[in-house]
Amino acid sequence: MSAAPRTGLGFDAHRFVADGVDRPLFLATLRWDGAGVDGDSDGDVAVHALIDALLAASGLGDIGTLFGVGPASRGAGMAGAAMLAETVRHLRDNDALPGSASIAVIGNRPKIGPRRHEAEQAMSAICGCPVALTATTTDGMGFTGRGEGIAAIATALVQVDDAH
Amino acid sequence: MSAAPRTGLGFDAHRFVADGVDRPLFLATLRWDGAGVDGDSDGDVAVHALIDALLAASGLGDIGTLFGVGPASRGAGMAGAAMLAETVRHLRDNDALPGSASIAVIGNRPKIGPRRHEAEQAMSAICGCPVALTATTTDGMGFTGRGEGIAAIATALVQVDDAH
Amino acid sequence: MSAAPRTGLGFDAHRFVADGVDRPLFLATLRWDGAGVDGDSDGDVAVHALIDALLAASGLGDIGTLFGVGPASRGAGMAGAAMLAETVRHLRDNDALPGSASIAVIGNRPKIGPRRHEAEQAMSAICGCPVALTATTTDGMGFTGRGEGIAAIATALVQVDDAH
Repeated sequence: MSAAPRTGLGFDAHRFVADGVDRPLFLATLRWDGAGVDGDSDGDVAVHALIDALLAASGLGDIGTLFGVGPASRGAGMAGAAMLAETVRHLRDNDALPGSASIAVIGNRPKIGPRRHEAEQAMSAICGCPVALTATTTDGMGFTGRGEGIAAIATALVQVDDAH
Repeated sequence: MSAAPRTGLGFDAHRFVADGVDRPLFLATLRWDGAGVDGDSDGDVAVHALIDALLAASGLGDIGTLFGVGPASRGAGMAGAAMLAETVRHLRDNDALPGSASIAVIGNRPKIGPRRHEAEQAMSAICGCPVALTATTTDGMGFTGRGEGIAAIATALVQVDDAH
Repeated sequence: MSAAPRTGLGFDAHRFVADGVDRPLFLATLRWDGAGVDGDSDGDVAVHALIDALLAASGLGDIGTLFGVGPASRGAGMAGAAMLAETVRHLRDNDALPGSASIAVIGNRPKIGPRRHEAEQAMSAICGCPVALTATTTDGMGFTGRGEGIAAIATALVQVDDAH
């Protein structure tokens, strides 16, 4: 194993569905009250940003490399939890071990605090390492502040076996 | 102590006060020329993003967990320097040691360069580790580019005693 | 050498040139099809964010510290690859060794996937460490979603010789 872990960064944003569209909201592998977002998969921006961070730190491309892009892709219709589990298996198959990760969600809703621990536990169990979740609004500014959508930034540290 | 440090990420954004409102600008624990931002505390986005990054890396929630949320919260009216000092004490009480941190401020003002060293020294002294500060504009685009507000993204590495 | 690497974060955004303006697009040291961005240098947001992350992790300020700011600065007209190479030399002159880095590009174009490997190889060769590149859109939201410009967030880990 190499001495130092490698860093990865991911970003994702999705638009909330129009009023009247019936679609559940998924974030950080959990289902939340309120309307969901557009997207080919379940639109879990926290998990998608985390997947990009994990893949980037491992030198394995990004979420489009692994799951494809668009409505006909393999990722279309997949739940965030399943995509994250497959990503972690893919890392291990390439001798890359997640060490820790952290996700900042930016948006007016859902209210993360009361379910942070539940969300962190769920993602940590899948990744086999600590995964933290923070949340912030933008004081009514920008597309997140106007409630048009939700965004997430994630970082991850991964131990990569360079000798492989 | 565990072998590898853990990563944390934080984000914050605040709106500049309306023309004519008399409120000082605080950023990275320093007071700057020009009008400040709305917010229950002193609205120091650099410190708030850093606090989220430090708490996330330590598995200790986020700034709302420690200081509460809203005008009646314990954090209301607190200066960024005091919030940061309390955060670092809270980390140490939980056997978590800040190793390094870095903050990117996004906005048209204040002009960071001439006081970067002063700001970095102040935050590093409180954290007991190197804290870096960079600054960028968005070429007139988005809420930061229009001068509506200011944002900050922060990362931190924290050594957490898992044996605890 | 100190035991743990230090973390750095960088952000940059540039506006696409107006229709009809003839200016090539540079990103992640490569030239891409389609119109470029405004800026004093070649406007490579991925490289600029990466440079800020590398300098921040090393405690060496940011891109303005090293290259100046504005049309009369030393950085004006410089290509991203040359700026990155000079940055890495500056780190080494200060006993700071890049360990890994990761950049997330946010924008509608260019399409990164087909040339990700080429871009990662080019930046990794200059930095002497793995540099990952991911890309995302914002579902038509915000200045990146409206196609006004392009943004990038970068993280880096750098081994800094504190005994120096």
